[in-house]
Amino acid sequence: MNNYLLTPGPTPVPPEALEAMARPIIHHRTPQFQAILKEVEEGLRHIFRTKAPVLIFSSSGTGAMEGAIASLLSPGDKAIVVRGGKFGERWGELCTAYGIEFIPIDIEWGRSVDPKDIERILKEGGSGIKAVYTTLCETSTGVATDIEAIAKITKDTQAVLVVDAISALGAVPLKTDKWGIDVVVAGSQKGLMSPPGLAFVSLSRKALDMAERSRLPKYYFDFVKHKKSIEKNDTPYTPAVNLIIGIREALRLIKEEGLENVLNKHKRHARAVRRAMGALGLKLFAPDTYSDAVTAVRVPEGIDGARLVKTMRDNYGIAIAGGQARLKGRIFRIATMGYITADDLKKGIETLETVLAEMGYKFEKGSGVKAFEETLR
Amino acid sequence: MNNYLLTPGPTPVPPEALEAMARPIIHHRTPQFQAILKEVEEGLRHIFRTKAPVLIFSSSGTGAMEGAIASLLSPGDKAIVVRGGKFGERWGELCTAYGIEFIPIDIEWGRSVDPKDIERILKEGGSGIKAVYTTLCETSTGVATDIEAIAKITKDTQAVLVVDAISALGAVPLKTDKWGIDVVVAGSQKGLMSPPGLAFVSLSRKALDMAERSRLPKYYFDFVKHKKSIEKNDTPYTPAVNLIIGIREALRLIKEEGLENVLNKHKRHARAVRRAMGALGLKLFAPDTYSDAVTAVRVPEGIDGARLVKTMRDNYGIAIAGGQARLKGRIFRIATMGYITADDLKKGIETLETVLAEMGYKFEKGSGVKAFEETLR
Repeated sequence: MNNYLLTPGPTPVPPEALEAMARPIIHHRTPQFQAILKEVEEGLRHIFRTKAPVLIFSSSGTGAMEGAIASLLSPGDKAIVVRGGKFGERWGELCTAYGIEFIPIDIEWGRSVDPKDIERILKEGGSGIKAVYTTLCETSTGVATDIEAIAKITKDTQAVLVVDAISALGAVPLKTDKWGIDVVVAGSQKGLMSPPGLAFVSLSRKALDMAERSRLPKYYFDFVKHKKSIEKNDTPYTPAVNLIIGIREALRLIKEEGLENVLNKHKRHARAVRRAMGALGLKLFAPDTYSDAVTAVRVPEGIDGARLVKTMRDNYGIAIAGGQARLKGRIFRIATMGYITADDLKKGIETLETVLAEMGYKFEKGSGVKAFEETLR
Repeated sequence: MNNYLLTPGPTPVPPEALEAMARPIIHHRTPQFQAILKEVEEGLRHIFRTKAPVLIFSSSGTGAMEGAIASLLSPGDKAIVVRGGKFGERWGELCTAYGIEFIPIDIEWGRSVDPKDIERILKEGGSGIKAVYTTLCETSTGVATDIEAIAKITKDTQAVLVVDAISALGAVPLKTDKWGIDVVVAGSQKGLMSPPGLAFVSLSRKALDMAERSRLPKYYFDFVKHKKSIEKNDTPYTPAVNLIIGIREALRLIKEEGLENVLNKHKRHARAVRRAMGALGLKLFAPDTYSDAVTAVRVPEGIDGARLVKTMRDNYGIAIAGGQARLKGRIFRIATMGYITADDLKKGIETLETVLAEMGYKFEKGSGVKAFEETLR
């Protein structure tokens, strides 16, 4: 059976990257590996759109998120946490784990934060607020955040802006330096077309200053230590050598295609998926700000959402994602990022139609695929 | 040029594991991946010799070491740290990072700790000492620790025994349950014949109880959360899917060969390497307790140790390890673990002879290889 991954992480990995990972392993403290690390770091800076060093961690994205608390803040610091889904909530959990008091901005799941709320709370909170934790694309709801607008607000305050871009970097536009984002956290397994197991962090000067003064406990995710290492094309601890060799190939492919072209492709794909869902009479979950990395769709009345996802996967080899946490069974999600092609998506929509029909949902057969293809034409 | 890895991590990866890592990626929240995770965890328990669950982290071994501080201890707890090399020192650094006061037992590098010293300090320190941090094989010096004897001492105290077995599990005997070790930390890239990027932790009942009461900040390396997940064949965060699929093959190979046979093979290889060094007139660095995972050898008078290692690597494609920290240039190290074969070692010793001769060291040409082969016969 086929195995189409249309999930928002892991996403499919191009054969060039898989092949590179399968080469005999080399030692990490060698000029040969240092050159690879250098190329990967430069490739990441290109996609992060930053001149600052990008730190490379052997961990999931969550580990680097933990670093963005432990390596930046000190006891007594306060933070603002935007919570509009499972990953926004993770920022809150991380603050709690480290005893950091935070002011949550709770958004209805599916909605996007109003940057003015952040501005107001920053003003009211005074100088105690040291960081604003946000999510570029809330994977659990398919909602995009207006990071550019938020960065304008945080820029002239004492607070750093931290963006969890794990599920969207390389899939939706993000301009780290130009917008003035202090910390961007990313992962390997989404827009960057690589297996999970690597996480990345960019640090502005302002964030680095804060990291150098930070007094929360840290070791493995110590940003200052990692920054010193990466400047010497090194890592503080044994890195996941094969994953780094693999992502070099993925980053090369992105560069060859051109970052702008890649972003535009995903934007076109996402729009086509949204149109297809509309043609099938399905409602999108995010009513205002769509993310072009993943589209969340409401499961129609009378249809078992968990069964829909399971049937597509087990009977047809098409992996889409169901809902997480409070959205379990209520939505399904189709990713449009990384190495996911228009053909993959067409196959996914065809199969969605097949399974929806099997499950008794009424719609015009073929209308989804037709809308998808017409939008792309 | 060839690329022989005779370094104490990463070690060579068998083609079966490399090939498995290069297969198209699958999603981690599927029955298919759960079955793989289950098999890997069972394979690890077999090698750890434990019935307790083994936690699986996507990180280097150092990350799991950090977890063994943050997930076990609470503010005010004290610890004993055995420091006889770079990795023992890491335990101390980790305690310091988390504000844990520790009593160091500083051993001359190259020597092994006397378990009686631990016994004495535990008695003197009273109930405040909650953990004893040790290293099964101190990779930086090639010294083995008598963990069995230490476990007898800690067993009936309030303190847990934590063993960094990163560089030796699967290469030297370790009986977690039988000896009564509370926490064993391991990594994928040494005796377990896999690429770096995964770390493993076993937890005794006593350690789990302590973890459940622990009040140090933690998130990514939270042992209790990971234990709950692994019991459901799951991980709290997206795992390094391909690395886990790869290590399944490596663990299968170890099982097929038989753990006892694997341990005996490394023991024979290590003895043969030691004899070869003796035949070449080279002195071993560890005068008392040899580790069978890695042999540290003194660089003879008048020879540039860094150049020796570099020449073997750059001119002959044989990677051995130099000295770390205070031993830079003073020793070199040859690993005998994981997928390193007798043929690899023979090739390494041949090349060592060639380069030593080039550098003007006087010895009987061929005597090292001869002693190596005779010992194995």
